[in-house]
Amino acid sequence: MLNAPNTPKTQKEDSPIGELRRLLYRHLEPSVWPNAGISPLNWFLIAAILVGTVAAILQTEPLISSGREALFRGLELGLGLVFALEYLVRFWIAAERTGHGIAENRLRFVFSFSGLLDLAIIVATFAPFVTANLLVLRLARIIRIVRLAKLGRMSAAIQRLSAAVASRGVELLFTMGLAATVLVFGATALHLLEGELQSEKFGSIPRAMWWSVVTLTTIGYGDVYPVTVGGKIVASIVAVAGIGLIAMPTGILAAAFSDAFRTGSDD
Amino acid sequence: MLNAPNTPKTQKEDSPIGELRRLLYRHLEPSVWPNAGISPLNWFLIAAILVGTVAAILQTEPLISSGREALFRGLELGLGLVFALEYLVRFWIAAERTGHGIAENRLRFVFSFSGLLDLAIIVATFAPFVTANLLVLRLARIIRIVRLAKLGRMSAAIQRLSAAVASRGVELLFTMGLAATVLVFGATALHLLEGELQSEKFGSIPRAMWWSVVTLTTIGYGDVYPVTVGGKIVASIVAVAGIGLIAMPTGILAAAFSDAFRTGSDD
Amino acid sequence: MLNAPNTPKTQKEDSPIGELRRLLYRHLEPSVWPNAGISPLNWFLIAAILVGTVAAILQTEPLISSGREALFRGLELGLGLVFALEYLVRFWIAAERTGHGIAENRLRFVFSFSGLLDLAIIVATFAPFVTANLLVLRLARIIRIVRLAKLGRMSAAIQRLSAAVASRGVELLFTMGLAATVLVFGATALHLLEGELQSEKFGSIPRAMWWSVVTLTTIGYGDVYPVTVGGKIVASIVAVAGIGLIAMPTGILAAAFSDAFRTGSDD
Amino acid sequence: MLNAPNTPKTQKEDSPIGELRRLLYRHLEPSVWPNAGISPLNWFLIAAILVGTVAAILQTEPLISSGREALFRGLELGLGLVFALEYLVRFWIAAERTGHGIAENRLRFVFSFSGLLDLAIIVATFAPFVTANLLVLRLARIIRIVRLAKLGRMSAAIQRLSAAVASRGVELLFTMGLAATVLVFGATALHLLEGELQSEKFGSIPRAMWWSVVTLTTIGYGDVYPVTVGGKIVASIVAVAGIGLIAMPTGILAAAFSDAFRTGSDD
Repeated sequence: MLNAPNTPKTQKEDSPIGELRRLLYRHLEPSVWPNAGISPLNWFLIAAILVGTVAAILQTEPLISSGREALFRGLELGLGLVFALEYLVRFWIAAERTGHGIAENRLRFVFSFSGLLDLAIIVATFAPFVTANLLVLRLARIIRIVRLAKLGRMSAAIQRLSAAVASRGVELLFTMGLAATVLVFGATALHLLEGELQSEKFGSIPRAMWWSVVTLTTIGYGDVYPVTVGGKIVASIVAVAGIGLIAMPTGILAAAFSDAFRTGSDD
Repeated sequence: MLNAPNTPKTQKEDSPIGELRRLLYRHLEPSVWPNAGISPLNWFLIAAILVGTVAAILQTEPLISSGREALFRGLELGLGLVFALEYLVRFWIAAERTGHGIAENRLRFVFSFSGLLDLAIIVATFAPFVTANLLVLRLARIIRIVRLAKLGRMSAAIQRLSAAVASRGVELLFTMGLAATVLVFGATALHLLEGELQSEKFGSIPRAMWWSVVTLTTIGYGDVYPVTVGGKIVASIVAVAGIGLIAMPTGILAAAFSDAFRTGSDD
Repeated sequence: MLNAPNTPKTQKEDSPIGELRRLLYRHLEPSVWPNAGISPLNWFLIAAILVGTVAAILQTEPLISSGREALFRGLELGLGLVFALEYLVRFWIAAERTGHGIAENRLRFVFSFSGLLDLAIIVATFAPFVTANLLVLRLARIIRIVRLAKLGRMSAAIQRLSAAVASRGVELLFTMGLAATVLVFGATALHLLEGELQSEKFGSIPRAMWWSVVTLTTIGYGDVYPVTVGGKIVASIVAVAGIGLIAMPTGILAAAFSDAFRTGSDD
Repeated sequence: MLNAPNTPKTQKEDSPIGELRRLLYRHLEPSVWPNAGISPLNWFLIAAILVGTVAAILQTEPLISSGREALFRGLELGLGLVFALEYLVRFWIAAERTGHGIAENRLRFVFSFSGLLDLAIIVATFAPFVTANLLVLRLARIIRIVRLAKLGRMSAAIQRLSAAVASRGVELLFTMGLAATVLVFGATALHLLEGELQSEKFGSIPRAMWWSVVTLTTIGYGDVYPVTVGGKIVASIVAVAGIGLIAMPTGILAAAFSDAFRTGSDD
């Protein structure tokens, strides 16, 4: 994605094939789409991905899927053809990219993360039509859900937001490290205080870490909580630290977004 | 609301009727209210809406409403008359708006979102007095609660805040898309890991999505949670992602409000 | 607090009594304390308030208080004398304030919110020593906890932070109004969907509002949650709205603090 | 850490021993590391700390540790030697610090917080190899987890972030004071309202504070919640205050980080 140019090739190619290739390139690649928003072709692909994901989700519920096997199979076959065609077109238009030769640009697409993801999804979509192996079918089902990740490249706005998050990578990593430290200390303390009383839940530090996660994220399912006075006091300290753990990344991200949008509007 | 002018009509009309119309227009429309804050007439309407909403809420509790049917009916009739009068006045003063002819301004009011809402509310308020159809009565009850939405147009400050949120629409939409993706992936993972052990709760992806929502929003009712080691590890990752899902929109909104207030104070 | 001057009176009074009054004024009033931080006298008062609060809390627990009645009574008597003396001194030094006459400044202190609070606390502290009326004793116990509110005037930093929050009062009020609207709509929807199935929990809108509060604040005790598919879908929407309800005030406050500190450092 | 200079000593020492000491100093002390990021030696120490912590955590789970006692003992012995060597090297290179004499710099290291922590960890690591006293073994286990705190000095970025948090110390302290006040008031109110009905949970203010913490942090385990109408109304107010308690520190930290990064980029 990084070596994709912001402007299409400028040399004049008057052949209708070359013109079609440039047209498809502009419509598929958000960074060279000349108009605001998302191109009609990408809207269609977004719709196809969403329909496919919703179908894959609903298919797992027997109350919905039983008696509609043919409908789901037909939908899956149709979407498989759409994504296969998209892959071939993306391979073809990779030639429009600048900076390298046509062959190298195509190879770069095939071995890029999104290119490999596309190929894996197409293989997974057609697998159930050529095999009845249960493990393959199960894996294919997961990968069909993974298609959602294809949405990421559809919009330039997403790429700008991701850059803002990435620019604070070290600080966010530090916050996660701090969270992990509080997590481990909390689990260790509760293991020492209630390890014998509730051995099933706090009998070892790894077991106590489930309580620690559920408390620090403020979820609090209620399947595990301290029952002694000492345990409740330590749990209160861990819980208050949990508030800080939400406040710190939020503060870092707020500062990052604020700066990103201000810099953007200064241009 | 967008084509409402910021200044009232300036042509001199000396008739007392015209003066009354201009006076009511200034008192009902926050954007042309010359003083700071909210006009006395709008304060009265806010009070009427709040009293009506509280009454509609309390009426559903038998411990409160039984034996007080006449009181609630009388209150409802009185409020219905107030809102009907308000609607007629708003229709009349729509003529004060600039940019179009009087008739067109009035038609625009009738077919605007808030005009249609007003009419629906008035119909719903009087429906129980002319029919005893149970479905109509039930629908009327809901619409009486919807009157709360009328509060939105009472203040210019609300419109400024809404604009700040709207200016970051793409980014907030992206965050919701990301949240939906984590939601689906989390539900898929838990369905694969605990679908057979807790088939009632994780037996299909749509069922597992209830767990996913309750966990990502950090509510954690405790009606459904993972019980295996693998399920707990995946749930921990989803829970930590839930913190990020709170941090990202907060960061975006903080930046939006900060910029909106700074721009405002620069003028 | 608003008409308290930032500088003490400048006229020369050489009497030792007048000098003591000025000294006590500087030590008790944070806004005229010439050094950084909090004065030693205010540190002592903060300690007295905290000790009194902790004692009042612990006294309610029979495991701690039984057998130590004399200790708690003695502590309460000592603190009562400290706060009575503080009140008399504050009455005396009110004369140091500028802008009004000595008598008026003292009357203003007596009838100010903090003056009345001080008096109520002193009366409550000594009440158990002059009466055995159970209701009086119970009320006195609560008011002793209220002493914590006295801490508010101890620091100038607190007053600056409060001003930053107050400057966004309209926006925060709007957020609370929006939260109340979502609360009412969520409760109405769940009442319609599960009112008959779980009549004890969703049988009326006021009952359903307890679920609404517990969900929107993301607490999720687990005593009440939807059990039908429709209820779970609506609850999911309310839960996601709950994230926005946390994000909006946070964004507003972040912007307010950011501006307050930046303006402060520009001086 | 405060008296560590930003530049190494500049006098020419051509002895290979002196050169090795300067080299180790640059590699161990993040503030004098000339390149971006973290030095290879510190990466190795971070890995050793993390491996040791994970081992200490897993060792407490019988399902993992039983039958692998020799492996855990060997790993612990190896890590103990690494940390002992690190301590000796840190003692040796303390001479490179400027501002004081060599002997004083070394004494300062030995009696610094991190120096004493290092020594305690080394003693705790080797204790199980020289004694079988159960209490010593238990204490040693905790201290091995405390090694995580050694990570703090590994990165200059962490020190910058800590400074941003520290710069808002008064405001964050005030927020915690406010949270403590709401906590105490909420617990007092629930104790008064439900102290007799649920005496085990709200029978005294200290007992009610466990409910208060679990509610204000929005964890909501579900082991304790109000059951009366009055209790639920007060709990709702405390819960909404809980949202503000998350919003305020987040706002303060967001402003602090925003300013810290902006100031940093202005240089």
